[in-house]
Amino acid sequence: MMKRRGLVGGLAAGAAAGVASSVPAPAIAQSMPEIRWRMASSFPKSLDTLYGGADLFCKTVAELTDGKFQIQLFAAGEIVPGLQVLDAVQNNTVECGQTPTYYYFGKNPAFTFGTALPFGLNARMMNAWFYHGGGHELVNKFLAKFNVYGIPAGNTNCQMGGWFRKEIKSIDDLKGLKFRVGGFSGRILQRLGVVPQQIAAGDIYPALEKGTIDAAEWVGPYDDEKLGFYKVAKFYYYPGWWEPGPCPHVIFNLDKWNELPKLYKDVCHTAAAQSNVWMMAKYDHVNPGALKRLVAAGAQLRPFPGEVMEACFNAAKELYAELSKENPDFKELHDSVVAYRGEQYLWWQVAEYTYDTYMIRLRTKA
Amino acid sequence: MMKRRGLVGGLAAGAAAGVASSVPAPAIAQSMPEIRWRMASSFPKSLDTLYGGADLFCKTVAELTDGKFQIQLFAAGEIVPGLQVLDAVQNNTVECGQTPTYYYFGKNPAFTFGTALPFGLNARMMNAWFYHGGGHELVNKFLAKFNVYGIPAGNTNCQMGGWFRKEIKSIDDLKGLKFRVGGFSGRILQRLGVVPQQIAAGDIYPALEKGTIDAAEWVGPYDDEKLGFYKVAKFYYYPGWWEPGPCPHVIFNLDKWNELPKLYKDVCHTAAAQSNVWMMAKYDHVNPGALKRLVAAGAQLRPFPGEVMEACFNAAKELYAELSKENPDFKELHDSVVAYRGEQYLWWQVAEYTYDTYMIRLRTKA
Repeated sequence: MMKRRGLVGGLAAGAAAGVASSVPAPAIAQSMPEIRWRMASSFPKSLDTLYGGADLFCKTVAELTDGKFQIQLFAAGEIVPGLQVLDAVQNNTVECGQTPTYYYFGKNPAFTFGTALPFGLNARMMNAWFYHGGGHELVNKFLAKFNVYGIPAGNTNCQMGGWFRKEIKSIDDLKGLKFRVGGFSGRILQRLGVVPQQIAAGDIYPALEKGTIDAAEWVGPYDDEKLGFYKVAKFYYYPGWWEPGPCPHVIFNLDKWNELPKLYKDVCHTAAAQSNVWMMAKYDHVNPGALKRLVAAGAQLRPFPGEVMEACFNAAKELYAELSKENPDFKELHDSVVAYRGEQYLWWQVAEYTYDTYMIRLRTKA
Repeated sequence: MMKRRGLVGGLAAGAAAGVASSVPAPAIAQSMPEIRWRMASSFPKSLDTLYGGADLFCKTVAELTDGKFQIQLFAAGEIVPGLQVLDAVQNNTVECGQTPTYYYFGKNPAFTFGTALPFGLNARMMNAWFYHGGGHELVNKFLAKFNVYGIPAGNTNCQMGGWFRKEIKSIDDLKGLKFRVGGFSGRILQRLGVVPQQIAAGDIYPALEKGTIDAAEWVGPYDDEKLGFYKVAKFYYYPGWWEPGPCPHVIFNLDKWNELPKLYKDVCHTAAAQSNVWMMAKYDHVNPGALKRLVAAGAQLRPFPGEVMEACFNAAKELYAELSKENPDFKELHDSVVAYRGEQYLWWQVAEYTYDTYMIRLRTKA
């Protein structure tokens, strides 16, 4: 049956309590104290999809509280670097942040599940798992160990595999490949001989141009186009199997979160749900045009060969088995996601996938 | 660039205006008058996904306004029958409703675009079109002629093709087939010899059992299971090409909507966006289990044969061309959706579809 806890759920369950036939003005004032918080984003303003989701969140929170609860948003680097948002929220340098939790896989690989498991759930499945499948509760059970509360607040949808200077025709082509790749998936690719590189956004282009690295992945057509990779590495691979439905969270210092009036918590949950569907829709809206421009500018689209996908999948499975043995947080989240994935694709392949297949064939025939 | 109007948009654009450094209590009271409205749903309470989306909407509106703006929800038939929600809202019998606009295709076939165009956009693409592709504005330009304002507030995701007493092996099997099918798509199927039947939910099962009809479609595994069709018609076809991403709207009497304080309009937009992502996630969550139970109970899954899909697609195209000639509302919305569909599948087939394909193959291999 319907889960009516957490996230969207707690809100509905508690609604009746908030409904009185007449609420005098002083009660409203009490439940709506003036609060000013700061939010540190992991993203620059130029990413109007990712950063835009946090911007919409903060504006909505202010608007729905008649300006009483204001969260001022800061781009990556303005208060703390993009990769230190969790730490800043954990120690209350800022009360809240917008970040993909997988940036912190170095602290604990279980951080990956808040954002994306390589070969995990697609974007819609992530929402099903978060809102109704216990994912939100499991992720927050883990985040609480870092004194943080998180709410899903967007999705990039399935990402691209990145820009390669040379074609990848077999798993041999991965050996020694210097690849700028985000976070946790580097540990999978290492097993196939890739040399993963952690490079901040602004430094990727020159590294790729000079040949210091052989390949780089970022997000998808719309965001990648801005960074100009197509000018120096023309093979554009897909799919980004390490990020099938990546979700940035808004995160809150747990003590500060617990101090919020219930009304403001509800506003945050609802505003985050709006940012979630808004961002998914925006990526779907802007990616087709960007893809066409990239191809017109010379980008060569290439699917990863089947043997590469299979080798990566097997390497991922091995890594997950090892981590599950040594890390109970990882095991709990992994078991939940993998079981959920099996159920989801069982259904997905029927109506949804068959319809998309038919429409894609029609398109390419026409 | 980002659309910051309408729907989610207007909200963000107007946020700055609502932000004052100190808002005295009387101002809040003024902007939050006590309002009691009624909402008529087209759905029964037993559909905890569809009806549940409206329920969450009403509870959220009350909660976020501290109980000042309360909308009481009524199931289909409690105030007006499910198919008369638009009329009831238009003439202010109730201030608002929850309904799929395509129920009213008899008034004007352009009503179909608010919910689903056969062979149109999938669920995620619907959101991209609504939120960022001008769909919300175009649908409301049309709805305004009926004195109604609508906001997308959910999605069933791609539906199933329905329950058939006999297998459909060729287009000849459609001739004379008495098929209970929702709304507008009957006009397409008629061209192939189907005899479409309009039958209310509760009457479908006995009609199918007695053989008064040969087939019936409803929604998908979770909702269909409740109606028990698998006991009397074992062939369960897919995909429901006439409903690839159907969106129920919350609709408001336009005069009443215009009287709402801006804060309450913003609350409605944000709450509807939450219901949207909540319902999509809920259908994805509950359908896999229902599908397994149905198959265990004897349901035989069947894809529509390629020639049937092609004949239906061609019949749809013919109908759309005819309607576009005679109906400028239909033409404007149709041109927008069809152009958008071409762009969307161009991108969808790359990362998203390739990833899903790989994961589905893995699943069936394992």
